[in-house]
Amino acid sequence: MQIVLLSGGSGKRLWPLSNDIRSKQFIKIFKTETGDYESMVQRVYRQICKVDANSKVTIATSETQVSAIHNQLGNAVGISVEPCRRDTFPAIALATAYLHDVMGVREDEAVVVCPVDPYVEDDYFAALKQLSDLAEKGTANLTLMGIEPTYPSEKYGYIIPEGKEQVSVVRTFKEKPTEEVAKQYIAEGALWNGGVFAYKLGYVLNRAHELIDFTDYNDLFAKYETLTKISFDYAVVEHEKSIAVMRFRGQWKDLGTWNTLVEAMDEPTMGKAILNDQCQNVHVINELDVPVLCMGLKDVIVSASAEGILVSEIEQSSAIKPYVDHLDQPIMFAEKSWGEYHVLDVQSGSKTLKLNMKAGGQMDSQCQAEKSRVWTILSGEGVATINGKAQSVKAGDVLSFAQGTSYGLTAQTALSLIETVVF
Amino acid sequence: MQIVLLSGGSGKRLWPLSNDIRSKQFIKIFKTETGDYESMVQRVYRQICKVDANSKVTIATSETQVSAIHNQLGNAVGISVEPCRRDTFPAIALATAYLHDVMGVREDEAVVVCPVDPYVEDDYFAALKQLSDLAEKGTANLTLMGIEPTYPSEKYGYIIPEGKEQVSVVRTFKEKPTEEVAKQYIAEGALWNGGVFAYKLGYVLNRAHELIDFTDYNDLFAKYETLTKISFDYAVVEHEKSIAVMRFRGQWKDLGTWNTLVEAMDEPTMGKAILNDQCQNVHVINELDVPVLCMGLKDVIVSASAEGILVSEIEQSSAIKPYVDHLDQPIMFAEKSWGEYHVLDVQSGSKTLKLNMKAGGQMDSQCQAEKSRVWTILSGEGVATINGKAQSVKAGDVLSFAQGTSYGLTAQTALSLIETVVF
Repeated sequence: MQIVLLSGGSGKRLWPLSNDIRSKQFIKIFKTETGDYESMVQRVYRQICKVDANSKVTIATSETQVSAIHNQLGNAVGISVEPCRRDTFPAIALATAYLHDVMGVREDEAVVVCPVDPYVEDDYFAALKQLSDLAEKGTANLTLMGIEPTYPSEKYGYIIPEGKEQVSVVRTFKEKPTEEVAKQYIAEGALWNGGVFAYKLGYVLNRAHELIDFTDYNDLFAKYETLTKISFDYAVVEHEKSIAVMRFRGQWKDLGTWNTLVEAMDEPTMGKAILNDQCQNVHVINELDVPVLCMGLKDVIVSASAEGILVSEIEQSSAIKPYVDHLDQPIMFAEKSWGEYHVLDVQSGSKTLKLNMKAGGQMDSQCQAEKSRVWTILSGEGVATINGKAQSVKAGDVLSFAQGTSYGLTAQTALSLIETVVF
Repeated sequence: MQIVLLSGGSGKRLWPLSNDIRSKQFIKIFKTETGDYESMVQRVYRQICKVDANSKVTIATSETQVSAIHNQLGNAVGISVEPCRRDTFPAIALATAYLHDVMGVREDEAVVVCPVDPYVEDDYFAALKQLSDLAEKGTANLTLMGIEPTYPSEKYGYIIPEGKEQVSVVRTFKEKPTEEVAKQYIAEGALWNGGVFAYKLGYVLNRAHELIDFTDYNDLFAKYETLTKISFDYAVVEHEKSIAVMRFRGQWKDLGTWNTLVEAMDEPTMGKAILNDQCQNVHVINELDVPVLCMGLKDVIVSASAEGILVSEIEQSSAIKPYVDHLDQPIMFAEKSWGEYHVLDVQSGSKTLKLNMKAGGQMDSQCQAEKSRVWTILSGEGVATINGKAQSVKAGDVLSFAQGTSYGLTAQTALSLIETVVF
């Protein structure tokens, strides 16, 4: 199946693990069978490949996430890069044009659109495959997935189907209701709208051409910044009469806040943590190298990263946003296509980082207005190219670049180095 | 007055702020009038100098604390360095010999011995001055300070005086009692034993010569390791008949555990901290550069340093010791005579530190078995001496030392540098 994963923007609801450049879907928090940790996007991608080995996955996202995606998923995944954020309709239109013009997908092929971060089991992706097959049959222009509600949630939109069959025509959509109204909806057979739908590529391409003046993918990409922000729901779904919904009864969780995230964790702690016997319902997610000791706490989440420390009563952790929105916190960690870096020290006039490069990782840059940039290779082997001249580097080597120097480094093995820039 | 401050050993009761080399008395936690923070030892030293500008202060401590003492108090303070820890009687004997043989204090001069870390007001030091005067008068061989109890504590030893006068003969001493027994003692007029006493120098010198075979300070210092561990109470006080006690009625606190320490703090937070409105009785002591966000907590202490994070219910924080005793945590921060260092990164085969030198600070060393040692000067100016050859250094300069190189650095201004050692 052709699947487009919508990879949402940055956000601080999972601060201090998520930040302005690290979205929650890239946090490695789920333990795999091998004991390693994987991120939401890695988990979803692994599940898709397991359920349908022939899946073609395209991630619709912004430039800022491209490095992290390549770093976490490799280069086999397609990426439809949004030059800026313009809500879901322009994003889906661009990804659809990308599939058609760049990847050569035919207009009568089905495309499934899905968020990048549902916390689900394999049956969910099997259902996506059914959704793709339904869209390909073409009985409706849009085929949605409706999730059987497990409680009258106020957090989700609702889909009201005509009947109770597995696949049904949609009668109407409802915005997030109060709990009381949600109960009524559920009594009428309503389903949660999980933001998943399938269509024949040509359908969305036609809608895009009706609403946006563009010739092809390149043209749409070039004028992306000029597009109006509008959601797919407002631009397409609300005006479409031919919509079907397929019921899904399996596990489905939206892990957008700390309280929902820790519920999904297999173990109460991740990273170095010590809890005394008097702790009850305490969760620790610690990305630091040093231990967190918890004593006598009840219903508390502790999360520590290089960017800060959260200590919150579990329910209140969902209300973190206003407190962290105004934090003017420099980025202390980032994933890059070549690996990752950590900021070790910042003071007026200088910055020191640790760079961990993957074997095969490559980076290139040029010294701007700085007194000096110094690399000390800690481990591994590579080839540095300084003003076009290549030289081998290994643990213990020191390289110093003057202003204006162009420099590059290719890691032949996994390679770590300390970079100090003095301005 | 001659005052000997006993500076106790390391301890982890205030982990993660105290560690194997940073004792609690050096943690800068008390806000001064200028808005800076000072440590217990700085606070006590400042108070002594204020109450009696002619005080001569000698700190009895181990080698490991000498750098921190010079760094925090400057070079005017005397230090009686214990070659190893041998409990209070050998320590006081050594300090007394030091005063006599090195500092030329006469045998009939009074000496006051006091712990380095009482949390008290100026009146306490005025009382020490009175204690010194009483000792000098010589009505008793030992003159103790007895603190008027404010509750029947189980944490302190008790002194039972003969009468209720301001200065009285001691009838007997009592070990730490139960609360019930403490109530009885207090009804009999008992006082807390705060570990403070005064004597004429010759008295303790004589007792030392009776109990230890030594000629002078140098001889005692040389054989210090062979001495038996014994407390001053067991070695001297228990056998002495001529003991007076002077009552002290002012504030006196022993800030040995987190719960007592946070009570003494002027403000609920130190360092970067955000508490939401639902927090009640929450204390944050954060030595890191990144913020701690607390939400919905009650009666909780959060303390964060480069060595770890403590999150504890307040009362339980006094029971931290068994949990941190077995933590095998590398030292991430230390004070040196020339300034301080922070460990930024440790990986197999390398270590990266940030060194902050004070203006005038000097260090010297030699490269041992290492592939390279690299300095990148971040700020400030100094003179580096490499294999005996001096050169000026400034921000942006890079120095790389091979194995066997002897190197030194004198900071002419405050100077920061990054040091990376690859083994």
